[in-house]
Amino acid sequence: MLINQTMVDKAEALIPELMTSVVEPKSVVEIAADAEAFQGWRVEKAEDQAWKERVLGKGDNFILDFGDHLVGYVSLKVKSIGSPPDAPLKLKLTIGEMPCEIAEPFETYDGWLSSSWLQEETIFIDVLPAEIKLPRRYTFRYIKVEVLDTSKKYNVSFEQIACTAVTSGDVARVAPLPESVSGEWSEMDSIAVKTLQDCMQTVFEDGPKRDRRLWIGDLRLQAQANYLTFNNQELVKRCLYLFAGMRLPDGAVGACVFEKPHAHADDTRLYDYALFFVACLYDYYEASGDKETLEELWPIAMEQLEIGVERLDERGIVRDDETWWSFIDWHPELNKQAPSQGVLIYCLKRGLELARTLGLADKQQYIKEQIARTAEAAVTQLWDEDAGFFVSGSDRQISWASQIWLVLADVLPAEDNAALLERLFEEQPVIGMTTPYMYHHLIEALFTVGSREKATRQMQAYWGEMIKDGADTFWELYNPEDKKQSPYGSNLINSYCHAWSCTPTYFIRKYLI
Amino acid sequence: MLINQTMVDKAEALIPELMTSVVEPKSVVEIAADAEAFQGWRVEKAEDQAWKERVLGKGDNFILDFGDHLVGYVSLKVKSIGSPPDAPLKLKLTIGEMPCEIAEPFETYDGWLSSSWLQEETIFIDVLPAEIKLPRRYTFRYIKVEVLDTSKKYNVSFEQIACTAVTSGDVARVAPLPESVSGEWSEMDSIAVKTLQDCMQTVFEDGPKRDRRLWIGDLRLQAQANYLTFNNQELVKRCLYLFAGMRLPDGAVGACVFEKPHAHADDTRLYDYALFFVACLYDYYEASGDKETLEELWPIAMEQLEIGVERLDERGIVRDDETWWSFIDWHPELNKQAPSQGVLIYCLKRGLELARTLGLADKQQYIKEQIARTAEAAVTQLWDEDAGFFVSGSDRQISWASQIWLVLADVLPAEDNAALLERLFEEQPVIGMTTPYMYHHLIEALFTVGSREKATRQMQAYWGEMIKDGADTFWELYNPEDKKQSPYGSNLINSYCHAWSCTPTYFIRKYLI
Repeated sequence: MLINQTMVDKAEALIPELMTSVVEPKSVVEIAADAEAFQGWRVEKAEDQAWKERVLGKGDNFILDFGDHLVGYVSLKVKSIGSPPDAPLKLKLTIGEMPCEIAEPFETYDGWLSSSWLQEETIFIDVLPAEIKLPRRYTFRYIKVEVLDTSKKYNVSFEQIACTAVTSGDVARVAPLPESVSGEWSEMDSIAVKTLQDCMQTVFEDGPKRDRRLWIGDLRLQAQANYLTFNNQELVKRCLYLFAGMRLPDGAVGACVFEKPHAHADDTRLYDYALFFVACLYDYYEASGDKETLEELWPIAMEQLEIGVERLDERGIVRDDETWWSFIDWHPELNKQAPSQGVLIYCLKRGLELARTLGLADKQQYIKEQIARTAEAAVTQLWDEDAGFFVSGSDRQISWASQIWLVLADVLPAEDNAALLERLFEEQPVIGMTTPYMYHHLIEALFTVGSREKATRQMQAYWGEMIKDGADTFWELYNPEDKKQSPYGSNLINSYCHAWSCTPTYFIRKYLI
Repeated sequence: MLINQTMVDKAEALIPELMTSVVEPKSVVEIAADAEAFQGWRVEKAEDQAWKERVLGKGDNFILDFGDHLVGYVSLKVKSIGSPPDAPLKLKLTIGEMPCEIAEPFETYDGWLSSSWLQEETIFIDVLPAEIKLPRRYTFRYIKVEVLDTSKKYNVSFEQIACTAVTSGDVARVAPLPESVSGEWSEMDSIAVKTLQDCMQTVFEDGPKRDRRLWIGDLRLQAQANYLTFNNQELVKRCLYLFAGMRLPDGAVGACVFEKPHAHADDTRLYDYALFFVACLYDYYEASGDKETLEELWPIAMEQLEIGVERLDERGIVRDDETWWSFIDWHPELNKQAPSQGVLIYCLKRGLELARTLGLADKQQYIKEQIARTAEAAVTQLWDEDAGFFVSGSDRQISWASQIWLVLADVLPAEDNAALLERLFEEQPVIGMTTPYMYHHLIEALFTVGSREKATRQMQAYWGEMIKDGADTFWELYNPEDKKQSPYGSNLINSYCHAWSCTPTYFIRKYLI
């Protein structure tokens, strides 16, 4: 790793104080199998709401609904009823963002992400009454409390179960939408804002349940939404310095960063993510006008462009390969070449603006040449005139991602960009979109070409459908056509509050008001 | 409850500082099914002893043998190997005194004591490397460490697993046995001393794994062994004040006391246990000569005798009933009447000695009368001349316990006591003995009547057999004829270091050297 300790120290000095609020459960619920309900589970208010008065013995349980999505620390007060407790109390807590996490036994999980993400605790309490502050942070709306064992001589009763919620996103800073905004958009905006808020901790996390980590792909979208809502610029600055301060051996910015036990970069390298450092810095400067930071981080941004250009073949096209070299989207069959070409051009263009701001003539010249070379190569090498689409890879794959990114790269005349997106909807290539992250770029492309109505209809069809399916915060993965689908092999391990899904507030506040 | 706060405060002021020592694992072992081995499990040293260097992924595990029985706090240091950990580490620890606890899945437990006594922890570690100090106290020799999950990107390795052992029994105060004592008795003595030591915490606990609590039946035997070994008189004094300071509403001393969250008495009432307060005080004064404590606690001791006498019927015999009114032994069919009569007389006689010491003529007179009345009643009402045994209850049950306790009560002429015990061995009544606690009283009775050889043979056949079966400390329950038997429905929940089983050191030091 290339460590610039001064930059890391600068990042660490920017660790924010988190705001806290204590949240109590709102109701006792039951979760029933229902083929008509989202993912097959229906949540109903239980008849008996008096959970604090309930006397519980071995095998008894109840499910608390906190009424909204929360990120924080759970505490509980429990006392014994009956004779003095003559054996430890054995409790199990199952903690979930969604009903499926409470209703489907974790033992059934067989996906490819670690089962250690499933939020559960088995606790032995030797002394009663007890006030327990669980040390881990959880992300949830529901908690199932199960009394696994007491003894024949005593039962238990809970006096309090609460969550101390944490965030670095101050809602007081979020401007209310104008009254003219309809309820539909207002609701979508507030869910998006909550999604962003719950991801805003001591960094912009991708998902507070999982992976609880700073990814640059998520950061870019979070920061864009943040500038129009919480506008916590310091937090973006901290994240930029974390990426800049700890790079991969050749100078590329890593894909993600961990904060604990001390800040350290992951060894994951993604072509598009390294380039997004430039776009993030561009957006940050646009929002903040913080030239000092721009000047300090510029050399690293410039290096990312050079590293990106190094991957070009003799034709001026980003070299493809069989590894997981570029992210773009989770689609398992997606070829990454053409969309990565789009990302490179997109970031070169933002880099050019920054070089202009800094008055760096030679850099401007270099970047301009690279833009010309890569944009021309995209049109001459990747554009299939017969198909009317950009193609990607040796199999000339036609995907949504390729069209979207090459529209965002703006390599065609304006009217051709709009027509290309029209054609995309008409012909519906089979290699579609998997994540809200990819949907974001489709919407952004539509707004960019002026297809405002199509853009809003897509938002309604995607994020609007999540709301109908009960989203308190927007999800990492969602397929309105197959609501149980998960690329991780199980809906139990999906992240139901995910950074890259927070952008409806950005679209609403940037384009719709 | 009758609370005498001054006495409780006196008890609390006597809470000892515990001595600590850090113990590291001695070896890595494997536990294999073996029909020939005790309880069906054979422990073998593993081929690969290098547990600290081992790289463990999902599903890997190893078993550490700490080489001896321990009571204390476990800490572990674990680090990641490979990429930065991108998911929590999920660990399971199974902590056992005996191989069966490691080898038999706890899910199979179906006994009548709470499953919450089974020592296991499932731990999620969010940040690596980590140094974890588990907050609960465990009692064990073996720890099975299982890596339930990591992620595809990293494995783990343990740098340290250790136990900070705790006790209030200072081995430096235990006099070594004379060199003339054979290896057999010396080994039995040291295991008994270790048993007592591990039960000596901030009170004399019955069993440090379970119930971790002060029972007066255990206290009496522990204190007797303690006077000849650790001689921690302050700890006995603390326990006497706990019992004296918190009594049942009618003034009877309760059967057991809990220390946390503050000292409080259980609601369990046992006829014999309340009376043993007198015997405990007698033994304490004999050992310590502490007249101040004797004077302060005497009224409570006297009250126990009066409460005991209240239960006599018009014949002068302790009234029987169908409830769990007197302990004596765990035997499910044992009738408690005759042995309780023995306990009453035994304690009256010790009370008489205390009244003499204090020069209380009227109390002496009262107690003498009660001794005469109850002893005569025992002989006239409970002795069955034809059978040559004492009988108990309306069904005139002949049990070992009845004979033993009426020998200890010394109601027959000396030579008849000896003959009665001889007859017991010859005729072997079917209502036998279940616990080491009852065996203790048999051995004590044998030594009392001068049957030294029979006493030592019984010790060899019982505690000696436990040693052959691998005891590091002596057990709560043991049946040499049926080694898997447990009155609690499972060998998993037996207490393998139990106070009432520590008395071989008392016999060896009192009668054999």
